[in-house]
Amino acid sequence: MAEAQEVGRADRRRARTRAALIGAAQRILAERGSTEAAVLDITDEADVGLGSFYNHFTTKAELFDEAVLDLLSDFGAALDEMCAGMDDPAEVVAVGIRSTCRLAGSRPEVARILALSGPRFLIADRGLAPQALRDIRRGAETGRFAVPNPRLALALLAGSVLAYLQMRLSGNQLTDDDADDLAATVLTTLGVPAQSAVDVAHRSLPVLAAHREPTNGGELP
Amino acid sequence: MAEAQEVGRADRRRARTRAALIGAAQRILAERGSTEAAVLDITDEADVGLGSFYNHFTTKAELFDEAVLDLLSDFGAALDEMCAGMDDPAEVVAVGIRSTCRLAGSRPEVARILALSGPRFLIADRGLAPQALRDIRRGAETGRFAVPNPRLALALLAGSVLAYLQMRLSGNQLTDDDADDLAATVLTTLGVPAQSAVDVAHRSLPVLAAHREPTNGGELP
Repeated sequence: MAEAQEVGRADRRRARTRAALIGAAQRILAERGSTEAAVLDITDEADVGLGSFYNHFTTKAELFDEAVLDLLSDFGAALDEMCAGMDDPAEVVAVGIRSTCRLAGSRPEVARILALSGPRFLIADRGLAPQALRDIRRGAETGRFAVPNPRLALALLAGSVLAYLQMRLSGNQLTDDDADDLAATVLTTLGVPAQSAVDVAHRSLPVLAAHREPTNGGELP
Repeated sequence: MAEAQEVGRADRRRARTRAALIGAAQRILAERGSTEAAVLDITDEADVGLGSFYNHFTTKAELFDEAVLDLLSDFGAALDEMCAGMDDPAEVVAVGIRSTCRLAGSRPEVARILALSGPRFLIADRGLAPQALRDIRRGAETGRFAVPNPRLALALLAGSVLAYLQMRLSGNQLTDDDADDLAATVLTTLGVPAQSAVDVAHRSLPVLAAHREPTNGGELP
């Protein structure tokens, strides 16, 4: 019994350390716009010992990958909650595009990580890309979309959003309204008739649920 | 006279050193997929003295930016040559998309640099992005395109191409045919009627002229 408690405590401590490292990597990505940081910088930022890094990750790249996937998955889960009651696959895709683009205004630190690291995760098996691919396929199955090649459709959808984020973060004067126009245009490339696409992309946007507390218990900067 | 020759020689030597540094940075980007290299790594690769780096660049970031812009401008110039005789702005845009996507197969080392660093240059004042924006505007002026917001159109066009490159380089099974389909789809977002877009995106593709010799006199790996 006492032994089980001991194990539980050790597991929790281990999970806390891992989460602290991931949180630190996310902050470094958001602040520096780059993964150029020494392991010591990361463990200092995470407030854990240098050695504990290697209990959890083999390389810095592995940590940064986890940090980005963690963020993408959290945001994806929030999107799924927003769209839980929606019947129209076109609206689900539109909400995803519009909400992701709006991060540039509402959570620029998250948007910056997405714009910076998102491209590398377009073929990841978790995160936003497979979620978008799932939504594209759903629309194709129900006949709402006409999509000869879902992966190519994903390239257009995700690439457009990433480029939008990058340009808007660089002060390119793109707006939330432009995000809605982009969503409408992307829907037409999925075979949605133009007027329907415009309508769907301008429906009232569900509020993005408060993000889960970051696993390190703190907030991104 | 002798003095002028001396100056000319010094200028040429200076230009050669700069070009060698840029070539080295391009090879490092292509090989490592990252800008994480020490200045000494770069000067070794360029076969120039460590100190000469700082005669040309203040920071590594400045060199890598130049290296990417140099590559983008060279490729842009080659595209312009290919399209010199074309009247139809839609064909010019299609050739740009199709040729850039094909780099993933024909010059993967260039494609890798584009996919990696291209996003940061979407709002640069030279390179491929302003060239694509110019082509979009030309089509809008002649009435071939209907584009309410050229910058948003650029986000969709360039973002799609960058995502295509990234996905194809990651082994995502996208093909040259998919590149043509992507070009057709992007044209429809610029207001080109669907059938015309398909026709234009499947015209015979001009051969990409041999790239100018890289300024360091060597080839990318």
